[in-house]
Parts: sequence; C-alpha cells; structure tokens
Amino acid sequence: MPDSIPDDSVGLVSPQLIHIDVPLTLESGPVLSQYDLAYETYGTLNADASNAILICHALSGDHHVAGYHSMEDKKPGWWDNVIGPGKVIDTRHFFVVGVNNLGGCKGSTGPTSINPETGQVYGPDFPIVTVNDWVESQAVLADKLGIKQWAAVVGGSLGGMQAMQWAISYPDRLRHVLIIASAPKLSAQNIAFNEVARTAIKTDPDFHEGNYLAHNTLPRTGLGLARMLGHITYLSDEAMGEKFGRELRHNTINYGFDVEFQIESYLRYQSKTFVEKFDANTYLLMTKALDYFDPAKTYNDDLVKALAPIQAKCLVISFTTDWRFSPERSEEIVNALLANNKAVTYAKIEAKQGHDAFLMPITRYHDIFRAYMQRIASEVPA
Amino acid sequence: MPDSIPDDSVGLVSPQLIHIDVPLTLESGPVLSQYDLAYETYGTLNADASNAILICHALSGDHHVAGYHSMEDKKPGWWDNVIGPGKVIDTRHFFVVGVNNLGGCKGSTGPTSINPETGQVYGPDFPIVTVNDWVESQAVLADKLGIKQWAAVVGGSLGGMQAMQWAISYPDRLRHVLIIASAPKLSAQNIAFNEVARTAIKTDPDFHEGNYLAHNTLPRTGLGLARMLGHITYLSDEAMGEKFGRELRHNTINYGFDVEFQIESYLRYQSKTFVEKFDANTYLLMTKALDYFDPAKTYNDDLVKALAPIQAKCLVISFTTDWRFSPERSEEIVNALLANNKAVTYAKIEAKQGHDAFLMPITRYHDIFRAYMQRIASEVPA
Repeated sequence: MPDSIPDDSVGLVSPQLIHIDVPLTLESGPVLSQYDLAYETYGTLNADASNAILICHALSGDHHVAGYHSMEDKKPGWWDNVIGPGKVIDTRHFFVVGVNNLGGCKGSTGPTSINPETGQVYGPDFPIVTVNDWVESQAVLADKLGIKQWAAVVGGSLGGMQAMQWAISYPDRLRHVLIIASAPKLSAQNIAFNEVARTAIKTDPDFHEGNYLAHNTLPRTGLGLARMLGHITYLSDEAMGEKFGRELRHNTINYGFDVEFQIESYLRYQSKTFVEKFDANTYLLMTKALDYFDPAKTYNDDLVKALAPIQAKCLVISFTTDWRFSPERSEEIVNALLANNKAVTYAKIEAKQGHDAFLMPITRYHDIFRAYMQRIASEVPA
Repeated sequence: MPDSIPDDSVGLVSPQLIHIDVPLTLESGPVLSQYDLAYETYGTLNADASNAILICHALSGDHHVAGYHSMEDKKPGWWDNVIGPGKVIDTRHFFVVGVNNLGGCKGSTGPTSINPETGQVYGPDFPIVTVNDWVESQAVLADKLGIKQWAAVVGGSLGGMQAMQWAISYPDRLRHVLIIASAPKLSAQNIAFNEVARTAIKTDPDFHEGNYLAHNTLPRTGLGLARMLGHITYLSDEAMGEKFGRELRHNTINYGFDVEFQIESYLRYQSKTFVEKFDANTYLLMTKALDYFDPAKTYNDDLVKALAPIQAKCLVISFTTDWRFSPERSEEIVNALLANNKAVTYAKIEAKQGHDAFLMPITRYHDIFRAYMQRIASEVPA
C-alpha cells in the first residue's frame, strides 16, 4: 500500500465500462449481440488523436495497467513500472488505453457475466474467443474512443500476439507494433502445459462442468494447480534457484509431505491467493486462445506471407532465459518481417528472470523500450 | 508382442523375490524390521563374482530391465536396448542385476504391501525412503547374491543418483560408476515440478489421504496429472515438436475443450494407461527421494568434499536437450570429480529427445557407453 502516490505514477485511476451493442461474430462461430469492455486510460488524447497507445494483456492480466484504484491498494497496475509521467511509456506524451479482454473476469463480458439472453451467468456457455476476436472488439473500442490509428499497440506474451494480430488485421490503424516475449504460435510443449492446466481445472470435482458458481463453489484445487504450473513456466530455472534455491522452509528436514522447501511454500501461497480472484472458465478460455493463435496457418504455415500485410514499424524484444517463449520464437517473427522488408528493430535482452522478465524493470530492456517510445513521441504533436 | 524372441535379447526372464530380515534403519528414522526386494538377473555370475553390474532405476522404473516375462508381452524390459548378448552391456560377459526400489510398487516392499506389524496394507504409512536407503538395501542384496564388489553400478536420472551414492557410501564395493542424465541434487525448478505433481495426487478426492485402496479406488485424476506433467519434462520442446507439432487430432479446429491437438491426445492416453499400473503413494515417495538427494548438504554444500571418498572410475553422460537434468548439472559432478583428481570420462551427447534420451538407442551414446563397458569387460575374467 503506498503511503503516498509516487510522483511518477499516473495516480488514482478509475476503470470505465463501455457497453457495445454492435454484434460481434466470433471466430468460433457464435455471435455476441452485445458486450461490455472494461478499460482504463492514462494521459490525455491529443487534438488529432494521434498519441494513443493500446496495451494488450497476457493470460491473467487485465485493464488495470498502471496507477492505483485507491490509497488502500497494496499494488499498482501490472505494468506500472513502464507507464507513467516520465516513465518508459510517458503519459505526459501518450494517451494509454488498457482493456480487459472479452471472456475475462475483471469487468469485460465473460463467463462470470449475465448472459442477456438467459438472465443466467454464462459460465461454461461463454463461447471460445480468439486473439482475432479480441482485436475486433478492441477496434470497436478504438472507434468509440475516437482513435482512428494507434501510435502503437504494445503487448507482452499473449499480449504480444494481440499486438501482432492488430498489425496484420488493421495495417493502417497502427503506426508501430511492440511484440515482447511472444511467439508466432505455441509449440507442442506450450500446448501440453496448457492441457495439463486445463485438465487440472476440469477434473476438479468442484468444477461441475463449469457451473461451479451455480453450485456456490469454486474449483480451487484445479485452478490452483494450473497457477502453480504457470508460475514454474514463467520463471527461469536460474531465477527460481536465486530466489528460493533449496532453502528449507524450517531449518531441518522433516521427511514428510508437508512443505519442506521454500519453493513449495511459495507455490502453495501463490495459487491460494490466485484462485480467489480469477475465474476458472476465463483461465480455460485464455489458454485456448493461446493454443489457437497461429496467423501462418491460413497461409500454409508460411509466416512470411502471414505478416506481409503489416505496415507498422516493429519492435520485437525477447529475453535470454525465457524458455516459455524463447528468443528463437521471437526471431521467427523478426525473420519473417525481414523477409518482407518490413522495418523491424530486434533486441534480445540478457535477463535471468525467464518469461516474467517482460514485467520487470530491467535496465537495458527499459532503455531500449524507452528510446523506441521517445522516437514514437517525436512523431506526434503534443 | 514379439513373434519370436530376438537373438540379442536376454530372452524370457523371471523376477525373483528375496526376503530380507536384517532390520534397515531408514534415513527418515523408522526401522523396517523386514522387507522383500524384487529383482531380475541376466547373464552368469563368474567364479570370482567380479562381473556383476547393478542397474538402478528411475522414478517409474523397476527391476524388469531387459527381456520378456512371457511371449505375450507387448514390450521388453525398460532398458532392453542396452542389455543383452552383444548389446552395450553384454550379458555374455556380465551378470546384470535389476532391483525394484524399496517403496516401489512392482514387487519390493512398498505402500501396496502388507505391513507385517498390522496385517494391513502400508498405504500412506510406508515411511519416506531416500537414495541412501536404497543403496543400503541394494548392498544387502549384493551380500545375499555373493557380490562383494560390483564391476559397475549404472543408472540414469534418479538411477544415476543411486549410482553416485553407491560410489560415495561404498567406495570399495564398485570399480566403476556410470552416472547418466543425472544431477548432484534437484534445482528449485525440479522440486517445483515435483510439488505440483504431489499436490495433484494429494488433492484428488479419491486419494483419501493415501488410503485409497481401503476405499476400493485409485486417485486416477491426480496421478494422471502428475504423469502428464512428468512426460512434458522428460521430452525436449524440439522432440515434442517433431513428434506432434501442432497437428490437429481431427482435421479441422473445433473450438471446444475436447482434444484438439495430437499432443493433448497423447498426454491423455499416456496418463490413462499409467494410473492403472503405478501406485500413487509410490509416486509420492519417489519424488520425495529425488527432492532430498543432496550428498553435498552434509559437507556445507561442498560437492568436492562429498565426492572425495569415491574410488570408482566414473563415466558421466549428459544430453544436449535434457532440460530436466541439463548437461550443466552433469558437469557439476564432473568438475567435482576432477577437483578430487578422480578418474572421470565425460560425454555430452547431441540428442533431440530431452531427458528421455538416456533410454533411447542413440548411436554416439551407445558407442561411448559400449566402449566403456568393453573396457570394464576386459578387466574381468570370463
């Protein structure tokens, strides 16, 4: 909890909700006749609406990207170290938009929302949503906000996939795309981890085929397992070693099945807090969106052709110890962009933190990120 | 199922059971007053009992290392490609012993055995066993078989840890030690994966605090999740990609939570067959033995000091894409041996298969392994 709001914070912010009644035909088939999107904005939109930055979130992220909701908040938004006055994405120059993805559980329409057609909670009936669907709904939001063209669309991990899809789907609606710690598609191993997470959730007796809310319960065990597993893949072996090593929870070995090592205690705690604040059906949907993302698929697996429509200038960033989305995966994107003669800047950052590095204030990462954002700022009127 | 037994097979083999009534004080405290060990042998012990090779198994392995139990067997023992007449460990020269670890579920005393003191199945009351305990019980077996000194103790993964401990605990009872795809201790990440697996088993409502047999059930869901997760860590991302890629199970995307990709189908099938043939309490015990193994711990984390007692000549082998026990972990062992001026040969094998490579007939791996075994063979009378 901040004693006082730091000077370089966007300060106290309020989420906003927009109701959209333009029907959205989802890639999976169904039509959402209406939906809400929760979003936050920081900074001021300039006169010609040319300074807007869209931040796309990853699996468990949301629209609360920076600042505090109240003085009682223990933590600011999830990318607060990047966004604020004088920060990497400088809100003195930019108008920054964060939006909770459709299918989410933090305010946008999703499995925990009321289905207007039945008057009941969607639960497992909420349809499969894809990265494409998110981009479509974000484009509607941009229209509503009067933003014809983003100065940049920015995302890490699953957020990077959305940024990439924006550049493919709407070449003239963004001038820059920043794709951080991402990949052109999941590997079999990535899908396998997602499948274990989904199986854990779906086999929890409290899951009730997704209708757990109607049963006044939550699939805490399954979602907790999914989160524990996720945590392992977000961190590098090295980072985990430095943070926890083989430190014992108590000083002596107990030879039993209670918590023995610090890492066990950490994982149990992390999963325990997560399951109370995140919806299991949303978790399932997000992992499916990850699995399905594969822009090259419709081009006979030719990523070069898939990225051909892109007009935006590109910054691609990867991290050396990220084994979930390794630098090689980012380099596939870079190589396909280069093969198309696109303007692309690539930085592989030395970092110990694994996939989570994209959320960390790593000096060289932020220096490169900042320099790129300053270049964008120099292109737009104040 | 073999139409006929191949010429280079050890052929039809029968497991044997030895009852041991020398009490064993376990590292965790309790005393086992008596226990059984299931084992198999291949080849013939020579006159001075100098040609015996002990094979130590990994997490889900057992004493059935080579050959067939019947003509109806679909598969031979788990390391059949290494052991047999004319094979890497040539049974024309060597007397090979495989033993099911104490706490196992394939014949040696473990959680599914009857506790002689209560007349009931041990279940969760079977005590925690460690790598040290296994070495102690294997030493008793060696005594019973009249083997004063092994020509070599050989193991991969958790089996490599047992081999290493043999060389530390009984320097004069083995002339060679072969430590393959192993590590001097688990990393925090390794422990974290084990903790997720254990949590999956223990939170399965059918686990009944380990008393599932008394409830006429099995914690299939939890053990299945543990196995799925294990499988991911045994394979490299590359191997999984080559084997499954992003191949769809059916030809079209179904946008649902049924199996969509081949890798999902494979993992579900693998876990389904595993849970019927492996005991969940044993799985818990094996992962704990992995977590606890750390010979350097009692030497102030000084691996050089921990390995100082070793007199055996050492062969250490690692595999390039093994991310569970990476080559760096094997090199810690090699470096500590070199710092002690021990005789050590090290080979890092280029292999795509990840941790599972140690079970595969990879040419360079088997060539090096064979050459080393031939050297050992040349030292012993026929």
